[in-house]
Amino acid sequence: MAPPALKGAPLPATPVNTILLVVALQTEAAPLVKDLKLEEDTSGLFPAGVPWTKFSGEYKGMTVHLVTPGKDPIHGVDSVCTVPSSLLTFSCIQLLKPDLIINCGTAGGFQAKGAAIADVYLISETSFHDRRNTIPGYVEYGIGALEATPVAKLLSHLSLKEGVLTTGDSLDHVPEDDIIMKNNNATVKDMEGAAIAYVANMLSTPLIIIKGVTDIVDSPAPTDEEFLRNLHQAAHAVQAVVCDALDFLSSKTLSDLQ
Amino acid sequence: MAPPALKGAPLPATPVNTILLVVALQTEAAPLVKDLKLEEDTSGLFPAGVPWTKFSGEYKGMTVHLVTPGKDPIHGVDSVCTVPSSLLTFSCIQLLKPDLIINCGTAGGFQAKGAAIADVYLISETSFHDRRNTIPGYVEYGIGALEATPVAKLLSHLSLKEGVLTTGDSLDHVPEDDIIMKNNNATVKDMEGAAIAYVANMLSTPLIIIKGVTDIVDSPAPTDEEFLRNLHQAAHAVQAVVCDALDFLSSKTLSDLQ
Repeated sequence: MAPPALKGAPLPATPVNTILLVVALQTEAAPLVKDLKLEEDTSGLFPAGVPWTKFSGEYKGMTVHLVTPGKDPIHGVDSVCTVPSSLLTFSCIQLLKPDLIINCGTAGGFQAKGAAIADVYLISETSFHDRRNTIPGYVEYGIGALEATPVAKLLSHLSLKEGVLTTGDSLDHVPEDDIIMKNNNATVKDMEGAAIAYVANMLSTPLIIIKGVTDIVDSPAPTDEEFLRNLHQAAHAVQAVVCDALDFLSSKTLSDLQ
Repeated sequence: MAPPALKGAPLPATPVNTILLVVALQTEAAPLVKDLKLEEDTSGLFPAGVPWTKFSGEYKGMTVHLVTPGKDPIHGVDSVCTVPSSLLTFSCIQLLKPDLIINCGTAGGFQAKGAAIADVYLISETSFHDRRNTIPGYVEYGIGALEATPVAKLLSHLSLKEGVLTTGDSLDHVPEDDIIMKNNNATVKDMEGAAIAYVANMLSTPLIIIKGVTDIVDSPAPTDEEFLRNLHQAAHAVQAVVCDALDFLSSKTLSDLQ
């Protein structure tokens, strides 16, 4: 069954003036901040206590904000997983009123679906694979499948592969995850995307998800080692695609993308 | 290792004027709304698009708001899991500025730790059990253990059992969850609590978690059947304890609770 149509689709003919980049890891954010010449905003936009970071600038006539969930103040690591990124996205939609969100970063890929290290995908649909609940009605809620915002012209311009993203809060995957990820028809696996899509859909904000492959999910290699080995290569591949996407978005309306 | 001390502890001598009850299920919320004579707020406080509900009223000199993440607009079921409750709690802290949050509802209990159906627990500590990540530094971040707000006098007054809560987005549990839940020293298992604690700690808002047992985690009975059979009984047990807690909180300061 196809996932439900997104709120806000088809896209309106409104200009793409303000873009929000949501990025989970500092290592993924750094090359984009540098390339786009964004500057850190320390004006205290966010509520006291949140570790989030925001970098902003003008790029080819558009206002670009790049936000990250920041370093966890207790553990000192990047605030990965669904809860921090959903809070960040929710707040930034309200505070910054973006015309378009781009969630970009790294992910696992399924070689059975043709994914290879440093491939970059445009996501066509998002689902969760770690919200199991057999009570009637809750099975589909847990999966939470959503179509991506339709951007066929952007996809064609970027010449990217397209694939379904499955999201869970763990870096690894257990046999029950494997079954659900397969049912989700997943090509790409990450730890935030479906939660960001949940928020974007709820608040009717168009969202593009671009993910670069750091590790092969359906291979025996340990995910953590593969991930760390390929993180920089994949992050740079994503950065190049995001810059191409921004170039394409400049002076366009949302309806030009579909 | 003990979890990190909470922000805001020890508690200040500020009066408990405004209380925010965060409740995941409509079945859990209904008896409380009725008992406390709360009225639905349809003034449009929340952003357009969110399915959240809010019921408010005065109770023994305090302003009480009860909020739920509401019915998912696509699937028509209660918006369970960590992401909706964390978004709701985050927004309500900012919009309603509660002196104290009470997250109350139903949960699984571990009979190995003495839990029985309809027991009600005051939570001493929260952790996650489904955010596995073996990259150095991320193990402890994924677990995300947090002490509860210290409320020894309230605990003594209510004569409740005390236990550690472990949170995950699935109703059931896989062998990897079992290992982590045991390491978390869990007595109670739910699908929202640790995420609400994450938000409350981040925004320095005191939080009490009260959970009634609907099903036994470490028994062979299917969780979904046990849960549905015992939901009303456990929800009513929680309701009675929450009303007792509110009676105790009336005319008190936060520091009176510890």
